[in-house]
Amino acid sequence: MALIVQKYGGTSVGTPDRIKNVAQRVAKFKMLGHQVVVVVSAMSGETNRLIALAKEVQPTPDLREMDVLVSTGEQVTIALLSMALMELGLKAKSYTGSQVKIVTDSAHTKARIVDIEEHNMRADLDAGCVVVVAGFQGVDEKGNITTLGRGGSDTTGVALAAALKADECQIYTDVDGVYTTDPRVVPEARRLKTITFEEMLEMASLGSKVLQIRSVEFAGKYKVKLRVLSSFDDEGEGTLITFEENEKMEQAIISGIAFNRDEAKITVLGVPDRPGIAYQILGPVADANVDVDMIIQNVGADGTTDFTFTVHRNEYKKTLDVLKAVQAHIGAREITGDDRIAKVSVIGVGMRSHAGIASTMFRTLAEEGINIQMISTSEIKISVVIDEKYMELAVRVLHKAFNLDQEA
Amino acid sequence: MALIVQKYGGTSVGTPDRIKNVAQRVAKFKMLGHQVVVVVSAMSGETNRLIALAKEVQPTPDLREMDVLVSTGEQVTIALLSMALMELGLKAKSYTGSQVKIVTDSAHTKARIVDIEEHNMRADLDAGCVVVVAGFQGVDEKGNITTLGRGGSDTTGVALAAALKADECQIYTDVDGVYTTDPRVVPEARRLKTITFEEMLEMASLGSKVLQIRSVEFAGKYKVKLRVLSSFDDEGEGTLITFEENEKMEQAIISGIAFNRDEAKITVLGVPDRPGIAYQILGPVADANVDVDMIIQNVGADGTTDFTFTVHRNEYKKTLDVLKAVQAHIGAREITGDDRIAKVSVIGVGMRSHAGIASTMFRTLAEEGINIQMISTSEIKISVVIDEKYMELAVRVLHKAFNLDQEA
Repeated sequence: MALIVQKYGGTSVGTPDRIKNVAQRVAKFKMLGHQVVVVVSAMSGETNRLIALAKEVQPTPDLREMDVLVSTGEQVTIALLSMALMELGLKAKSYTGSQVKIVTDSAHTKARIVDIEEHNMRADLDAGCVVVVAGFQGVDEKGNITTLGRGGSDTTGVALAAALKADECQIYTDVDGVYTTDPRVVPEARRLKTITFEEMLEMASLGSKVLQIRSVEFAGKYKVKLRVLSSFDDEGEGTLITFEENEKMEQAIISGIAFNRDEAKITVLGVPDRPGIAYQILGPVADANVDVDMIIQNVGADGTTDFTFTVHRNEYKKTLDVLKAVQAHIGAREITGDDRIAKVSVIGVGMRSHAGIASTMFRTLAEEGINIQMISTSEIKISVVIDEKYMELAVRVLHKAFNLDQEA
Repeated sequence: MALIVQKYGGTSVGTPDRIKNVAQRVAKFKMLGHQVVVVVSAMSGETNRLIALAKEVQPTPDLREMDVLVSTGEQVTIALLSMALMELGLKAKSYTGSQVKIVTDSAHTKARIVDIEEHNMRADLDAGCVVVVAGFQGVDEKGNITTLGRGGSDTTGVALAAALKADECQIYTDVDGVYTTDPRVVPEARRLKTITFEEMLEMASLGSKVLQIRSVEFAGKYKVKLRVLSSFDDEGEGTLITFEENEKMEQAIISGIAFNRDEAKITVLGVPDRPGIAYQILGPVADANVDVDMIIQNVGADGTTDFTFTVHRNEYKKTLDVLKAVQAHIGAREITGDDRIAKVSVIGVGMRSHAGIASTMFRTLAEEGINIQMISTSEIKISVVIDEKYMELAVRVLHKAFNLDQEA
C-alpha cells in the first residue's frame, strides 16, 4: 500500500463528465489498496470568468479580495469531485486550503507555503477516505484566504506530498510526459521515462511548459518523487522526475532540446569599459521591472565594450526606451536590438562527465549554416541564441546529433 | 452614528452593475457617519447553476459537499462588493461565514446558528471599514462549511445585527415593503409603515414571501429592529417590523390579508369516535414525512366523526395513498379530498382587543356567496379555507371590509 498524491489540472476537470473520469481513475488506485490524496484546479475557464467579473467592478482589483474571489473556483471542483467519488461508492471528503490548513505568507495572489497541517488529512486517509484538496490556495496566519498564483495547484500537490511523505506525486496534464523536445517540431521526439530535477528545471524554464517551475523546485527541495502523466490516457507511465542522478539506470548524456522564441536581444555598443558599467546599464532596466535572462559582455580593443542581454519579447520596446533615455549618461555609442531571435538549449546532467558536448552542438549548427549570436552555459545546459527562422531546423538537427530519437 | 446591518438578496447583486449600485447605497449610509455591515446572497441564478452541476455528478448530492459547493456563491459576491466599495474610495473587507466565524450546528444545508464571533468585525468597523459578510453560510465546530438553507441570508443579517447590537437591520428586496395584501390581487393594497413581528410571522408563513420566516423569529427573539426596503428605490422607507405592539402609534385592528393556494384538503369520513383516532390517522401521514397544516374534527351523532386536514398540494396524492392503505385498519367509511382550495387569512394583533372581527369576515364572505369549508383561528389570525376560484374575490372584499385601503 502506497500513499499517492494526484493532481488534476483545469482541463482534466473541465466538465462534470471529466470530473467523473477523474473519479474513475482515483477509484482504480484506491482499489489497488493505495491511499489517495487528490489536488484539483478550478474547472477550465472558471478562473478567467471570475477575473473578468472582478475587472468589471474594479479595474485594478484589490489583491486580498481577488484571492477570496478566485479561490471559489477550486472550491467548486473539490465538492464536485468528492460527490463523484461517493457516487462510485468511495468515501471522500473535500478540503479547502483554509480547512487543511495550508498556511502561507500574506502575499496575496502569489503567496508562498509556510506550513501544512497534515493531521486531519491523515486521519481521513487512515479511515479509508479519499482526501480531495483545493489546489492553488491557502490561508495566512490571520485567516485571510491566499492564492499561490497561476499554476499553483502543482505546487499544492508537491507540498502535500512532502508534508504527508507520500510515495509519489502524480501530476496529470494534457500531455503524457516530458519529451526530448516538442513533438510538433521533431516528430521523432521521444517520451523520457525519467528525467532529473535539475534537467526538468532547465526544461521548464526554457519553455517546456509541462510543470510549473516552483513545483519542481519544491519537489527537489523535499525529495518528492514526481511523475507527469496524461489524464486522457489510461495506460501510459508518464515521466518520472527523480532527485538522484543514479536513479537513472541508463544515463543518457543529453536528455532533451529545449527552445523558445519569447525573448528579444538588446545590445549596447561602444560603452566605456570601466567598472560599474554593467550596473549602469542593467540598473535602469531592473528599475523598470524588466527581467533579464542571458547577459554577455565582450571586451573591445579600443577601451570600449559591447554589452548584450536578452529580455522577454513583450518588454523589448520598453527596454529600448529605458536605455535610450540613459544612453548619453552611460556614454554608449549605439543601442540596437533584435526581437526575432530564438534560444535553443541542449540539456543533460550527463554533460557534467562528458566532454565534447559543446563542440558537437556548435559543429552541428555550423554544418547547417546557422550563425550563433550568443552562448550561455551552465553545468547541465548549453544555450545559444540564433535567428528565429532557423529555430525548428536547429532543434531537429540537434535532436538527431545527440541520438535523442533512440532509446538510451 | 448608528450601526446598520444591510442585507441584499440575489437579485440586488445579480450583475456587476447592480453590485456597483449596492456599493453606492452603502456609501450613502457611510457618508452619513454610520457604521455599516453588509450581508449578501449569491448573484441570482448562481446557486441554481451550482446545484445543477452537483446533480450532474451525483443525482442525490452529499449534503456536506453541497454546502462546500453552494457556499462559493456568496463568496464571489462578497469579494466583488468589497472591490466595488474600494473603487468608491471606501475601506472594505470581506468575510466568509467561516472567517467571521458564524458557528452553526452540523445540520448541512439547513444548519442553525449557534454563535457569532463579533470581535474582528467590530475592530474593522471601528477602523472605518465596511464589513461585507457572506450570507447563508457558517462553519461548524469541526471547521466544516455549513449553509442555513434557502433564504438563509436574511437570517445571517438578523443574527449579525443581534450579535453586534445593531441599531437596525435593513433587508433590501425587490419589493418596497410589506403590503396589506398582494397588490396584484388588490390594486388598492397599501404599504404598511410598521407591522409587528407576530403579524409578520403570520404573513410570512401564509405566503407573503417578503422575508424568510426564520429570520423574523430570530429578530423577535433578539429584539432586532428589522426594516424591509426596496433595493431599486432610493426614496422609500420600507416597512419597519417592530417587536412591541405599542411602537405602532396608530394601531390598525387588521394589518393585512394573506392567502395561498398551495394546500389541499383531505377528509376522512365516518371514523369511529374513540380516543386515539387522530393519532391513528395522522401517525401514518407524519411517518410519510408530510407536514399537516390545519386540522378540524367534527363530532357526529352516530358515534362516528369526520376528520379533515390540509397538506401541501404537492403531497396531496401521496397522502391519499397513505390513508387508503390504512383505511380498513382505522375503520373509516370513506376518504375524500380536494386540491382546488385556497386559504385566506385576516391578520392583526389588534383583534386581540377587538371583538367582531370573525363575524365581519364571515358576513363579508357570505354576502358574496362564498362558502367556508374550514375555519381555524389563532390570537391574531382567522383563516378560512374556500374554493380556490373565489380566492381573489375573497381577498378583495375582505381588504375593503377592513378598510385596509385607508391609512390607519
